[in-house]
Amino acid sequence: MKSLPSSVRIREVGPRDGFQNEPETIPTADKVRLIDLLSASGLRRIELTSFVRPDVIPQLADAEQVLEGVQRRDGVSFSVLIPNERGLERALAQRDRFDEINVFVSASETHNRSNVNRSIEQSLAGLERTLATAREAGLRCEGVISTSFGCPYEGEVPAERVFAIAARLAAAGCEEVGFGDTTGMANPRQVGEFFAAAGERLGGVELTAHFHNTRGQGLANLLAALEQGVDSFESSFGELGGCPVPPGATGNVASEDVVSMLAEMGIETGIDLPRLIEASRAAQEVLGRPLGAHTLTAGPVDWLGGQAAE
Amino acid sequence: MKSLPSSVRIREVGPRDGFQNEPETIPTADKVRLIDLLSASGLRRIELTSFVRPDVIPQLADAEQVLEGVQRRDGVSFSVLIPNERGLERALAQRDRFDEINVFVSASETHNRSNVNRSIEQSLAGLERTLATAREAGLRCEGVISTSFGCPYEGEVPAERVFAIAARLAAAGCEEVGFGDTTGMANPRQVGEFFAAAGERLGGVELTAHFHNTRGQGLANLLAALEQGVDSFESSFGELGGCPVPPGATGNVASEDVVSMLAEMGIETGIDLPRLIEASRAAQEVLGRPLGAHTLTAGPVDWLGGQAAE
Repeated sequence: MKSLPSSVRIREVGPRDGFQNEPETIPTADKVRLIDLLSASGLRRIELTSFVRPDVIPQLADAEQVLEGVQRRDGVSFSVLIPNERGLERALAQRDRFDEINVFVSASETHNRSNVNRSIEQSLAGLERTLATAREAGLRCEGVISTSFGCPYEGEVPAERVFAIAARLAAAGCEEVGFGDTTGMANPRQVGEFFAAAGERLGGVELTAHFHNTRGQGLANLLAALEQGVDSFESSFGELGGCPVPPGATGNVASEDVVSMLAEMGIETGIDLPRLIEASRAAQEVLGRPLGAHTLTAGPVDWLGGQAAE
Repeated sequence: MKSLPSSVRIREVGPRDGFQNEPETIPTADKVRLIDLLSASGLRRIELTSFVRPDVIPQLADAEQVLEGVQRRDGVSFSVLIPNERGLERALAQRDRFDEINVFVSASETHNRSNVNRSIEQSLAGLERTLATAREAGLRCEGVISTSFGCPYEGEVPAERVFAIAARLAAAGCEEVGFGDTTGMANPRQVGEFFAAAGERLGGVELTAHFHNTRGQGLANLLAALEQGVDSFESSFGELGGCPVPPGATGNVASEDVVSMLAEMGIETGIDLPRLIEASRAAQEVLGRPLGAHTLTAGPVDWLGGQAAE
């Protein structure tokens, strides 16, 4: 096995990506409590919410109230998703309550149009204005590229097209570019080749991988990225969210499963797995249903040892 | 990424490992129908049943009837699990209806005792007699070593102990040795190191990896083995079976998910994924509940493309 990173950064995206995909709106107080549990687990990056139009995504209409409610904690960076300049304006009214923004565009024309009704070029032009304003306000910026590993409408997405978009985002001020496997089409061979090339093409930018577990391959893809030196990942506690397509399919790779695997491999994340599981248990209670993260059910690897020792 | 095998052998263990773990006994006719669907999917190795004592595992009390019922198909090798000499005697009465046997022992004393109430040495001595008889009958033999990557009672299991047991099994006539991650404790770094050493230590024996998805790492472990040249795996359709510990946890890695990942990586298995999914759908109907395989819910990667094209 190739030499692997000794430590890895994980951004928890459940409070935005997960809560947004819930059929019932979660009460703000519950969101705040869950986010506080997450930041107590040792997670250093949490995506809190999105400043989308409340009529478009009512589940996140309480973005301001969430920012006001959550506890700030040293060493934990909060990010918010910004869909457009109007969203950034709303966010900037609370500038002190978060550290980073993330913006998004799809690498597939068809997917971008179906998502935001614009061409990729129109999206990028808008993002460039948004990013300029955000940079002026001193915010760290991440650009996320959806369907980086394949598009459900177009099929294969050329890596060169993804890299060209990433370079545009970096030039516009993104210190970090995230590559999303939006509908779980990536495979480990592709991921390995992708990040081998990305590392060469995109020097000086933090490269973040965002995998879905649609066909059970989330951690295998993460391993393939890790083997290419990728040390920044996004995941969701409990396996929440990730736009399950088709309905019933799994979305985001689960944070517990990522942390469990990395811990067993001796790779540092700074995250306390039992406390992270505690946050997911609390989310199960709030949502009133079992969540899909495997390690949430199975417990950490020392689980039975712990039981046997009792 | 290292050079990977161009093709892989998969043994489907659901009809034994899966059916045995069902709370309700499955009618023999349903078992036969499901096995016939599996062998029509292009699977070349299927573990059909076990000749255990019917009072110990009533779910497999119909071993003889299953062997009598299933269709023989060219190129599909049937195996049966043999727990002891009495079991082999029963199996040999139907010698023409199967091709291989598999026998098992644990690499952990505590686990072996809790499983069969014998020491590892006692188990090996018994297996050596069973294997000698099986070889005389012209049967191909696989020896499976449980808890090869960790024991829920003892924790770490030294790889050297596993290799020593594997060498005993090979000397006793096993052409193939399977390494089971019985309670899902393996991690990719460990698996990579294990198979790098196993390849050197156990020349001339087919090495088979049997992973569980207890903490979502099944396919990541499989990838790590693949990168060491392992090209033989065991899995279970629908994600059936695998002694879920603790209750509710996932057992065996799902055959659909393995086949989907390998197909996307361009690695040949000979298996038609839609037909395999068909077998799992039929199993869902027989068992009256949704099964856990991700690809069973999500469909193959071309799923949406296929829908969009309609």
